[in-house]
Amino acid sequence: MINRVISYLKDELSDVEKVLNENLHSTIKIIPELSSYILEAGGKRFRPILTLLSSRICGGKNADRAKIAAAVVEYIHTATLLHDDVVDESDTRRGRKAANRIWGNQAAILVGDFLFARSFFMMTENLPPSALNIMSDACVNLAEGEIYQLIKSYDIDTTEEDYYKIIFGKTAALIKAACEVGAVIEDNGELRGALRTYGEEIGYAFQISDDILDITGDPKNTGKPVGNDFREGKVTLPLIFALQKASREEKKKVRELLLKEDFEDKDFQTVKEIIYKYRGIEAAKQRVKEHGERAVSAIKTAPESREKEFLIEIANFLAEREY
Amino acid sequence: MINRVISYLKDELSDVEKVLNENLHSTIKIIPELSSYILEAGGKRFRPILTLLSSRICGGKNADRAKIAAAVVEYIHTATLLHDDVVDESDTRRGRKAANRIWGNQAAILVGDFLFARSFFMMTENLPPSALNIMSDACVNLAEGEIYQLIKSYDIDTTEEDYYKIIFGKTAALIKAACEVGAVIEDNGELRGALRTYGEEIGYAFQISDDILDITGDPKNTGKPVGNDFREGKVTLPLIFALQKASREEKKKVRELLLKEDFEDKDFQTVKEIIYKYRGIEAAKQRVKEHGERAVSAIKTAPESREKEFLIEIANFLAEREY
Repeated sequence: MINRVISYLKDELSDVEKVLNENLHSTIKIIPELSSYILEAGGKRFRPILTLLSSRICGGKNADRAKIAAAVVEYIHTATLLHDDVVDESDTRRGRKAANRIWGNQAAILVGDFLFARSFFMMTENLPPSALNIMSDACVNLAEGEIYQLIKSYDIDTTEEDYYKIIFGKTAALIKAACEVGAVIEDNGELRGALRTYGEEIGYAFQISDDILDITGDPKNTGKPVGNDFREGKVTLPLIFALQKASREEKKKVRELLLKEDFEDKDFQTVKEIIYKYRGIEAAKQRVKEHGERAVSAIKTAPESREKEFLIEIANFLAEREY
Repeated sequence: MINRVISYLKDELSDVEKVLNENLHSTIKIIPELSSYILEAGGKRFRPILTLLSSRICGGKNADRAKIAAAVVEYIHTATLLHDDVVDESDTRRGRKAANRIWGNQAAILVGDFLFARSFFMMTENLPPSALNIMSDACVNLAEGEIYQLIKSYDIDTTEEDYYKIIFGKTAALIKAACEVGAVIEDNGELRGALRTYGEEIGYAFQISDDILDITGDPKNTGKPVGNDFREGKVTLPLIFALQKASREEKKKVRELLLKEDFEDKDFQTVKEIIYKYRGIEAAKQRVKEHGERAVSAIKTAPESREKEFLIEIANFLAEREY
């Protein structure tokens, strides 16, 4: 599915890549080096695609601005990945060595700061003030989400509400902004709210399905060891749902494993069994489906178009992702 | 001197403190806690004072905006301090335990990100687009300066040019922006360039005099161990000047000490002797004086006023700072 969108937006996405590369210029070589390394490591340019589709569905008269906004969204996402990897002490990212393991934590922090700053500079030069308002608000939410995740890590009593607060900040807020900014660039007040809701809802669907995959996925496909979130102390939705029904002993056991110093692969097997026993995966999948439906419903008044079809397909794709 | 300015701007500075406190609000308690800790640790609000004076000298018709800009400049400065302390692995800041030693590196990084983001959000809500342009440009320079400092650390061949590139980014760029933004808020095109130059020049004077104090100062007054920069691998202007004249043996000796694993206080004595022998302090002091003079000269066309007198006094104060 995603390949068809990429092919449909081929020329624009190629321009976005140019914007991404051109704006890394600096007299300090390590900045483009480190940034390119993480930018090239891939990602599907999911957020830029959403900005481009949103802008096109709103008229698409400001294609150049949309490309800049798309690049800015990707820069901000990349900056948070750099800081995340330092915070999480990650060794790998997208199957490659994490940037902080090559250039050091210090450079990763500062190049992240550079990308944030350059993003805002690019916006001040090219985008309307309302775009900056949306993006800076998303960045506040991002920081809050990451901080809340940090506070709640290794906390077996993490609630569903805590979980949503975390994923709103760390994921949904930026995806929401990626969509909303598309409308704002086209000065389309009518669709602005619809796209914002669409973005927030697929943001939830995206993160929850990611968290499911962390439990059910094949490390060969995900590029991460199974149970990586749990190992990092992240209590995610499938486990939260299961713990709501688990016995006191089971909860105690999960807590022990969460706090265990030398966590092994087989320990996660125990956690996984408890999640499956209480159908935590199914309950979380149901949530993904609901968020996907809400996303589709939000944009039902948008004009019929190839762009609308793609936005709907993206929502459905997340809801039916192969686990 | 600085006390007289503080007293002159008493009411406005007290409002700036309110803006600083009010905008830390978040449902996540650690954000206002950690931020207040470092904000309260003091600092003389040097940058906010410059923004207020600059705005007043340009007419001062937008006092409310000036206070917000002043708070934003302080937030951005604080965010860089938080990231700096992680990068430098600092134990103390302004005589107190560094925030990263209390709340951890992870929280310090993320709260720094929060302050950057909140700064930009406040600007989008309250200040003209040109203010955002100036501040985002300053943030790009800040990140570049910090990265360049990191690259050049423990490099005995750091040149005068390298040094200026570092201090422009890490210090002068934000002080320049603090002054320029005052003019922009008042929409004063005439004084904008003058204040920008003034800010950049006192930025250099400020950082060079700080670097001199690191060598000559009494730890009781500076709150830092003597030779702290050298210990952290920072090759600063007095040493750069001395090394231009030092013998090959002396340079070799300094290099050994710079790279020495278990650096002791007495080791710095050797470095200090070489700096003094070649009059590195005097040469650096001369630079401070020149930057101070250029700062004063830049604003000579500004209308005669108490504000102008203060700006001149600040420049002179830096140039004649007690070493």
